[in-house]
Amino acid sequence: MSVKAARAAGTREAILTAAERLFAEHGVFAVSNRQISEAAGQGNNAAVGYHFGTKTDLIRAVVRRHADPIDALRQRMLATTGDSRDARDWVACLVRPGAQHLGRLGSPTWYARFAAQLMTDPVLREVMVDEAFGPSLARNLDGLNRCLPDLPLPVRIERGDMARHLMVHTLAERERALADGTPTVHPDWDAYADGLIDAITGLWLAPCTTTA
Amino acid sequence: MSVKAARAAGTREAILTAAERLFAEHGVFAVSNRQISEAAGQGNNAAVGYHFGTKTDLIRAVVRRHADPIDALRQRMLATTGDSRDARDWVACLVRPGAQHLGRLGSPTWYARFAAQLMTDPVLREVMVDEAFGPSLARNLDGLNRCLPDLPLPVRIERGDMARHLMVHTLAERERALADGTPTVHPDWDAYADGLIDAITGLWLAPCTTTA
Repeated sequence: MSVKAARAAGTREAILTAAERLFAEHGVFAVSNRQISEAAGQGNNAAVGYHFGTKTDLIRAVVRRHADPIDALRQRMLATTGDSRDARDWVACLVRPGAQHLGRLGSPTWYARFAAQLMTDPVLREVMVDEAFGPSLARNLDGLNRCLPDLPLPVRIERGDMARHLMVHTLAERERALADGTPTVHPDWDAYADGLIDAITGLWLAPCTTTA
Repeated sequence: MSVKAARAAGTREAILTAAERLFAEHGVFAVSNRQISEAAGQGNNAAVGYHFGTKTDLIRAVVRRHADPIDALRQRMLATTGDSRDARDWVACLVRPGAQHLGRLGSPTWYARFAAQLMTDPVLREVMVDEAFGPSLARNLDGLNRCLPDLPLPVRIERGDMARHLMVHTLAERERALADGTPTVHPDWDAYADGLIDAITGLWLAPCTTTA
């Protein structure tokens, strides 16, 4: 890598880190590209535009920075356990990689709070889904689907949405508590993942009393 | 009521309605008291301050406008079914009143999106909890607790938080879909409540594999 290319890569990293932190703490809509350039120590206020393009392109790049390692963790989990999984095992493959990734980053993290904002925004959610949805997630959801009781399609969709809400907001709330110094229920991200896996498995396997 | 008192009550109602809509659509932090006064048709930009005080006081008043009728629906539900309830019945008393209230308001509603913002903010959540927590909710949670399997306290707390996330975000997402004209999974709020009640009951009754 040339000196120039290395410097550009360093600038990109600094911008991504500043963006993630500002988005998590002040909100994706409240923070301008100008503020991000400044927080990243860029003399040029147009640095974000030059290196990333639009704000949505920047958001996409922040997501990718985390979605890739999470996907790698999921691939490894799917490869090391056999294919004779029950519903709880498939839910574990779905939930644990994200929690593990946050644990590896070390405190403080910002990604969970950032992701929670994206997932509650109808437009930005698409960015998140685009970047996070790869072959390993498709295989994971497919495996889980085969272990579920016979549920009407709308109920299946609805429970998928609910599982997503639980993952996103439970992790974001723990991250916020860590950032504020508020006591948390469990000692570490792995224990949080265990609790989430139990709950989401219960949610998926619950009898369906509606005839939707 | 004097003409003057009636006029003041009308102004307060107009302000509450405008605030709720603007908060839901643009975010609690993005909207100023001045914008609310204008949207409520008040020539005087200080109308919000005059009638409600601070922004937090105004938020509290919006919550109370919905928390009171929801509480009345819950009281009625608790009174009409017997005390030999199972976990699902108690969860129904917890979930259905909010959904029923939204159904009665008629489309469009804004309260679910507003409430979701409060519940993801550590300070504003306290306002919500203060206003929504009354004797009927205490009795409801107490009844539910008696029907649950023996769970360690941290797991009990955690599942309570998860149930809250599910209620708040599932209803807000349906409200948002209705506002955007996006197709929704179920035809009405009651059917949404049924799906939520099944899922939250499954979550509460799930075996606990952790030793937190």
